Amino acid sequence: MAAGERTLILAEGFSADRHYGKTMHGLLRYRPEDVVAILDSARIGEHEAGVPIVGDVDTALAFDPQVALVGVATQGGRFPPAWRALLRTCIERGLAIENGLHEMLADDPELRPLADRVGVELRDLRRPPAGLDCATGANLEVDARIVLTVGSDCAIGKMTVSLELDRAAQARGIASVFVPTGQTGIAIAGWGMAVDAVVADFLAGAAEQLVVEGRRRGGELLFVEGQGSLVHPAYSGVTLGLFHGSVPHALVLCHRAGSTEIEGSPGHPIPPLTDLVELHEHASLPRRQARVVAVAVNTAGLDDADADAAIAEAAAATGLPACDPVRDGADTLLDAVLESSS
Amino acid sequence: MAAGERTLILAEGFSADRHYGKTMHGLLRYRPEDVVAILDSARIGEHEAGVPIVGDVDTALAFDPQVALVGVATQGGRFPPAWRALLRTCIERGLAIENGLHEMLADDPELRPLADRVGVELRDLRRPPAGLDCATGANLEVDARIVLTVGSDCAIGKMTVSLELDRAAQARGIASVFVPTGQTGIAIAGWGMAVDAVVADFLAGAAEQLVVEGRRRGGELLFVEGQGSLVHPAYSGVTLGLFHGSVPHALVLCHRAGSTEIEGSPGHPIPPLTDLVELHEHASLPRRQARVVAVAVNTAGLDDADADAAIAEAAAATGLPACDPVRDGADTLLDAVLESSS
Repeated sequence: MAAGERTLILAEGFSADRHYGKTMHGLLRYRPEDVVAILDSARIGEHEAGVPIVGDVDTALAFDPQVALVGVATQGGRFPPAWRALLRTCIERGLAIENGLHEMLADDPELRPLADRVGVELRDLRRPPAGLDCATGANLEVDARIVLTVGSDCAIGKMTVSLELDRAAQARGIASVFVPTGQTGIAIAGWGMAVDAVVADFLAGAAEQLVVEGRRRGGELLFVEGQGSLVHPAYSGVTLGLFHGSVPHALVLCHRAGSTEIEGSPGHPIPPLTDLVELHEHASLPRRQARVVAVAVNTAGLDDADADAAIAEAAAATGLPACDPVRDGADTLLDAVLESSS
Repeated sequence: MAAGERTLILAEGFSADRHYGKTMHGLLRYRPEDVVAILDSARIGEHEAGVPIVGDVDTALAFDPQVALVGVATQGGRFPPAWRALLRTCIERGLAIENGLHEMLADDPELRPLADRVGVELRDLRRPPAGLDCATGANLEVDARIVLTVGSDCAIGKMTVSLELDRAAQARGIASVFVPTGQTGIAIAGWGMAVDAVVADFLAGAAEQLVVEGRRRGGELLFVEGQGSLVHPAYSGVTLGLFHGSVPHALVLCHRAGSTEIEGSPGHPIPPLTDLVELHEHASLPRRQARVVAVAVNTAGLDDADADAAIAEAAAATGLPACDPVRDGADTLLDAVLESSS
């Protein structure tokens, strides 16, 4: 969304789901001033982060939205059939659509002509830019300290950790830039590229372009949003391409307290944190050795005592500074990042 | 190419280049009966593997070709501008085009209408099939032994090693299938998918579909063509996605004797073979631990004594069986594969 654009978040059926509703929750946390309503007919009349939940588009119009943002993620990035009618109504009511799924609305044989007729924009956040290519080595020339978040699974808060680190650095007067690599990060920051949507051969090339652009935007410290996990059976390729293409100096390992299995992939264990630290350092490019400098523990849903225990356990196991930046602020992580570069 | 289709290989400027001409060399080795001529105006009148080299399309017509196959790879998979005229002439003379570059000829605003007018096919070998999705776990249900070639760099013979293993297995009466994952393998085998051309999120899903299809084709032993390298700064994402999506039981590590740096990426070292063995085993999915069972050493260009020394050195360093299957046959590698499954 452009800054100041009044936004209706479409989260039909998923507004209470932290995993599939992660785009919505990201927006509510980092762009709350622009969100005027949430659509989810299962929760009419409730609020989420102070924002009213409505059951249909016509009710939402009372809040005068300009854009409807698809606030859910789906497996494979396609629209459930019921969403088609919802999108049609939004377009008919004159709302622009901002969409982060793999399915491109601007290519849709039904919605595209409708949007053209009504005169509204269909913005596909995951559409790769033209002219992508393989990595060239320009990433290694970027004169900035580069920090990538990596993790034990998808959807455990890598974007959040990068955003919190960026906020903490800026609060200290450091010229830091958050580098968005996925649809939610792009919606929040207003730029970036969804690296999981590019042609696979151009993964590292896309990541390279992103760190070059982060430096061009003035970043001396770049916080690159991580994607997936090296141990995820479906998404590890994206993770390694982003890792090697963004050539990080330092990694912050993200983990959800207590998780021992990849979500949605029964039988795929999450290795212990110490193994994950070793795996990431082992997998880093010989030309730019990256070190894991801190652990970010997602303690959502735990009480303070359990959260503190989980964080202490992660720190003891890895010998690294650890905290939950959402609970405690990101200063512990930022200190570790800054110390690693001195 | 379909079996028996008379093929002109377009290799303008690259017919003597093992790296960029790898599609041509693959075809000459594994489908020689279907190649009637090679086009490269820098080598008019010469022969390659017994096939005449001509300088232009009209001369090639004397050999009665039905299809022109783009026999070169380019960085980024795009056509050099000079190739456009060449492709136009082929189409005007009634030749179908088989193309393995990322640039899709069937989408080309100039060549597509021309081909439609003349009535010839434009076959883009790298075009992903419709309906790709993320990996689902169906790969782990495939009732076959799966062997993936991995390597220290691109273009060092992973496809060749997989094809030689497949030949050797079939010669022993084993129900083996070569699983093509790149344009040259597809041109040779007549099926497969170029995993480097799929949307990055679907990398493992594409690899999954390929091993499912390999089993459906009767394979009890699948030799999956590897791509890229885990230590390649541009292509490692494809490598890991293919690795995790094809869920191999065993890996054959491919290396070009004497190489210490990634080709085309100065400053990016190739780690020692022992490190590469450890890295691949470390990076394999916890759910399906893969072991490196043998080393294939590419000794092209070495004399027999130097080749033997390079092979002995690889075997001593890793403690694994090693050979050059092109020089020695693939039985040493196949024995190691079969022993690892017993």
